[in-house]
Amino acid sequence: MSSEILENLDVCVNKIVLIKLKNHTTIRGTLQTFDQHMNMLLTKVEDITEEKPKNLEKIILRGDNILIVSIPKE
Amino acid sequence: MSSEILENLDVCVNKIVLIKLKNHTTIRGTLQTFDQHMNMLLTKVEDITEEKPKNLEKIILRGDNILIVSIPKE
Amino acid sequence: MSSEILENLDVCVNKIVLIKLKNHTTIRGTLQTFDQHMNMLLTKVEDITEEKPKNLEKIILRGDNILIVSIPKE
Amino acid sequence: MSSEILENLDVCVNKIVLIKLKNHTTIRGTLQTFDQHMNMLLTKVEDITEEKPKNLEKIILRGDNILIVSIPKE
Amino acid sequence: MSSEILENLDVCVNKIVLIKLKNHTTIRGTLQTFDQHMNMLLTKVEDITEEKPKNLEKIILRGDNILIVSIPKE
Amino acid sequence: MSSEILENLDVCVNKIVLIKLKNHTTIRGTLQTFDQHMNMLLTKVEDITEEKPKNLEKIILRGDNILIVSIPKE
Amino acid sequence: MSSEILENLDVCVNKIVLIKLKNHTTIRGTLQTFDQHMNMLLTKVEDITEEKPKNLEKIILRGDNILIVSIPKE
Repeated sequence: MSSEILENLDVCVNKIVLIKLKNHTTIRGTLQTFDQHMNMLLTKVEDITEEKPKNLEKIILRGDNILIVSIPKE
Repeated sequence: MSSEILENLDVCVNKIVLIKLKNHTTIRGTLQTFDQHMNMLLTKVEDITEEKPKNLEKIILRGDNILIVSIPKE
Repeated sequence: MSSEILENLDVCVNKIVLIKLKNHTTIRGTLQTFDQHMNMLLTKVEDITEEKPKNLEKIILRGDNILIVSIPKE
Repeated sequence: MSSEILENLDVCVNKIVLIKLKNHTTIRGTLQTFDQHMNMLLTKVEDITEEKPKNLEKIILRGDNILIVSIPKE
Repeated sequence: MSSEILENLDVCVNKIVLIKLKNHTTIRGTLQTFDQHMNMLLTKVEDITEEKPKNLEKIILRGDNILIVSIPKE
Repeated sequence: MSSEILENLDVCVNKIVLIKLKNHTTIRGTLQTFDQHMNMLLTKVEDITEEKPKNLEKIILRGDNILIVSIPKE
Repeated sequence: MSSEILENLDVCVNKIVLIKLKNHTTIRGTLQTFDQHMNMLLTKVEDITEEKPKNLEKIILRGDNILIVSIPKE
């Protein structure tokens, strides 16, 4: 058991992550930083739930909304 | 990992933020202050979920309702 | 970041506040006191969700039901 | 800010309170005692959601179900 | 304010209680023991939601599912 | 009041338990071990919600999904 | 009672697990690591809810979304 699985998010900093939310929304953006609640600061964010992406620019995402974070290949 | 991602909200104080709530409402207002639960004091608030904005003036928003906070460009 | 945003509710004591609840109800009443969970004691309360207000008189509102508290202008 | 708003429930002990629950039920009964979670012991309880009251007699109500407690006039 | 309202459940031990759950189920059984989360051990349990009771025998009920516990008259 | 009602699950270890979940699923399996959150390790598990059981083999069940655990007769 | 049931997940590291989520999604992937909240790092992940699997590659799954983790036979 890992003491802190979120350390795996460290490799995602400055990279593009894809995040599926509990409310069936999918967003994509560049991870700037995060905290132990999975709250995230993201830039260049797009809501890609529907075919035409919606620009969200720079956001803070509350971690309790997150279902899955897809991590880019290194 | 950041010890406190909410410090990123500090740059938003006195600026206009756009907040998407879990209940599919979107509000826009000037951030006055906030706490560690993401509770926020906002002024000049408008509910912009529908085409015609509704004026909410000065509000306290409970942080547990928040999905995403859009941060204005500096 | 404020250590306690709820102190902003202090200016509302003895004033009329409008409260939107998570269950889509809106109530209006005079704030008497509140605690750190946003539990509130309110008097002269009306449920104004529908056109014809319903009188609720004096109530304790559990804070976890609150979406937004509209603060009256000073 | 009050250190403990629930002390306001003390004046309701041995009086009839009306309680709206999150599940849209309304009950009415005599408050016997309560704790810091708003768990309540009530007697002579009636479910008055529908026109014809249903007798619930003596109950313990879990506080996390509560929306609003209407406090009787002194 | 009571320091521990659940002590009122002590008088129910070895008696038949009727429990309404948040999911609209009603069960009836003999309370054997309980803990501070309202988790309960019950015997001779019946699901009496519908007209024809369903036998559940001996169960542990997670307390977070409970709406109301009806206490038998002494 | 019991200090730890879950000790009653000790008698179920190596026995077949029937578990009703909050999501209206019912599963049946042999309890191997459990913790204080009611997380359970179960073997020979079947989803018996519908008439034809579905084999789930060996699972970890998150305790927060549990409604009721039926305890076998000794 | 086990002090830490999640230790049973240790045998799953580097193995393929099948995870049923509360939102009725089923995913399958290789468990890399996990923490005490059941947050998991998984690789070679597929969403197998529908007949045609969708490739999710490498993900972090928030543990609070989990219903059941199926453990492979040793």
